[in-house]
Amino acid sequence: MLTREMADEYLLRLQKIRREMERSSLTAILVADNANLFYVAGMVFRGYVYIPLSAELSPLFFVIRPMSVEGEGVVQIRKPEDIPAILDERGYGIAESVGLEYDALPYNEVKRLQKVFAESSSANSSQAMRNARMEKTEYEIGQMREDGLHQIAVYRNIDRLYKEDMTDLELQIEIERALRREGCLGYLRVAGRLMEINLGSVIAGGNADNPTPYDFAMGGRGVSPSLPVGADGRIIKPGTTVMVDVNGNFNGYQTDMTRTYVVGEVSDLAHRCHDCSIEILRRLEKEALPGVEAEQLYHIALEIVKEHGLEAYFMGHKQQAKFIGHGVGIQLNEQPPIAPRCKIKLKENMTITLEPKFVVPEVGAVGVENTYCVRAEGLENLTPLKEELISL
Amino acid sequence: MLTREMADEYLLRLQKIRREMERSSLTAILVADNANLFYVAGMVFRGYVYIPLSAELSPLFFVIRPMSVEGEGVVQIRKPEDIPAILDERGYGIAESVGLEYDALPYNEVKRLQKVFAESSSANSSQAMRNARMEKTEYEIGQMREDGLHQIAVYRNIDRLYKEDMTDLELQIEIERALRREGCLGYLRVAGRLMEINLGSVIAGGNADNPTPYDFAMGGRGVSPSLPVGADGRIIKPGTTVMVDVNGNFNGYQTDMTRTYVVGEVSDLAHRCHDCSIEILRRLEKEALPGVEAEQLYHIALEIVKEHGLEAYFMGHKQQAKFIGHGVGIQLNEQPPIAPRCKIKLKENMTITLEPKFVVPEVGAVGVENTYCVRAEGLENLTPLKEELISL
Repeated sequence: MLTREMADEYLLRLQKIRREMERSSLTAILVADNANLFYVAGMVFRGYVYIPLSAELSPLFFVIRPMSVEGEGVVQIRKPEDIPAILDERGYGIAESVGLEYDALPYNEVKRLQKVFAESSSANSSQAMRNARMEKTEYEIGQMREDGLHQIAVYRNIDRLYKEDMTDLELQIEIERALRREGCLGYLRVAGRLMEINLGSVIAGGNADNPTPYDFAMGGRGVSPSLPVGADGRIIKPGTTVMVDVNGNFNGYQTDMTRTYVVGEVSDLAHRCHDCSIEILRRLEKEALPGVEAEQLYHIALEIVKEHGLEAYFMGHKQQAKFIGHGVGIQLNEQPPIAPRCKIKLKENMTITLEPKFVVPEVGAVGVENTYCVRAEGLENLTPLKEELISL
Repeated sequence: MLTREMADEYLLRLQKIRREMERSSLTAILVADNANLFYVAGMVFRGYVYIPLSAELSPLFFVIRPMSVEGEGVVQIRKPEDIPAILDERGYGIAESVGLEYDALPYNEVKRLQKVFAESSSANSSQAMRNARMEKTEYEIGQMREDGLHQIAVYRNIDRLYKEDMTDLELQIEIERALRREGCLGYLRVAGRLMEINLGSVIAGGNADNPTPYDFAMGGRGVSPSLPVGADGRIIKPGTTVMVDVNGNFNGYQTDMTRTYVVGEVSDLAHRCHDCSIEILRRLEKEALPGVEAEQLYHIALEIVKEHGLEAYFMGHKQQAKFIGHGVGIQLNEQPPIAPRCKIKLKENMTITLEPKFVVPEVGAVGVENTYCVRAEGLENLTPLKEELISL
């Protein structure tokens, strides 16, 4: 492995991957996607990691750039076409079936790699990699706990960043600066090609009801049709909320956290919705035990919402999203989605967010989001901080 | 088109696309990539734009989300499988060959869309879209001129953001805030799946000689192996340079601009390299006329570098990049690359960057980058600002 002092950690990850390879009948995987490279190598580089199913053979790290990468199993190459000869030379044989990340790599790149491995059949490895990454190691959970502490440190001071007559965007810029000064890397790693976002969303008042192209509970028009998400430049007005859902990537892993702020007094409906969000979290923290199907959490949440008669505002108002959380880790949107029809069973050490949110017309978005680790006895909150509406 | 007041502009773009479709024998294109959606629709949404080759048929805008999009030719759909029936209903017939973005869409998504258009053959439309976007309209150039003005306004004040004993990262954070307050969208749209970057690079001293996974002249280790690019947290020291190459996306288009700052006195070699960069720009501004092949500009630059005996530092030192510029627009890295073997001929209204840079060991990176528009009489500089080394 590339990082000698972390050899045990990466061996553990390799075992998880090989278990998934076995399930998917893959005799080798070629890892190319940055998020997966970071998972298997502890660093992002331009190149590939070749993982044979057989534990007798070590992974090989084929590095195109930078030329400075060194370590066990590292081979500098110029292009993927160089790989088969090196595998042959090292006695790796020809894999029956090579897994490629069909969900992440462009069509033309997969076509090219299929030619590189012309003597093997190819199959999709995206699901196997997602599955392997779903249950975190204790080291990974430690990284995310660290993220949570940093994120909390920033959220704790958000009320001090606010000044009267500020726009949502001005507040967002000060929050971004505070995040960056706390060590936030300034990059949100998202799975899939669709979601383009900067450091997260600060949604004030009625902007919460502007639908986005994404499956978000809260909306946000943004300030340009080229990036239709988040703050739209409006002045934050008394009687409205500001929902802050910003980046928690401090080390390549990330936590996802939302708190809601208010200016002046907000309507009773807004308070009821916010209290309902907290009630859902308290209930799910106990119910989200290993073995429970992800969709069950959604159904429990929806039941609580219905008891309070708040369905019209749940996870959006004009446009509603059908989920209340998602897996999180190296990428913001990992498995499992906490959503209807998701039969994935929770397991110890999965990390998920729960974000029951509401959009109250005229007032804005309310609700809380935490990142949790699934433990034998219930959820461990990685983003513990006051959840009540906070006055600006 | 979606934006009625801009109808002529989008008709012009449609004509460019159809010209390229004809060249590539595509009877229809299904646009899905965000950058291309923004080009053809003036907004990003989740969905597709279907463009038939025949000018008698209008493009159709198939929108999945948000549900609020309205306009001529807009059809709300739930999934791409809904498209063929709607095309049939509207008398669009079955296209012989449908273009899909093979270079941008994941393998599995293309496979799915090929099934949607099972009665047509499919082909790669990425190149056709890149070609159409290469020569900008006057409106697009206007957008980029606006970007340039904003970017200049920020760069003009960078020396005032510096404080003694600051780290490169602390300076970068202040620059990011200044950019955002000037209206920068905070998102760098890059083509391809490889390059992950936040708002750009601030490279101080020896960090310029830390190679990156990317084809960059200057290096930058970053502060995490998950994002190995840019500032590495070092204190900016006297006798070194700080190269600032940060985001110019203020409206969905972007300019790309680099200026170099110095603390105290830097070596004669650093001055010679920086002067050489400026000399290359002055020469290329005259030579980069319509009809000239992109690689010619590279060769002219390399010749000037050799005259000064500075090859060892040109476009990197430990790791050298083989280009001196690139097309720019909606994405940071558009066609043409200004690089050896690029036979693309410059045409009026192409927008390109020129960034002859040098890495001087111990001292840091030097050089200048401007964004230009190719005009009949030479290059129009969209980022005009003092180019000499600026003292911090």
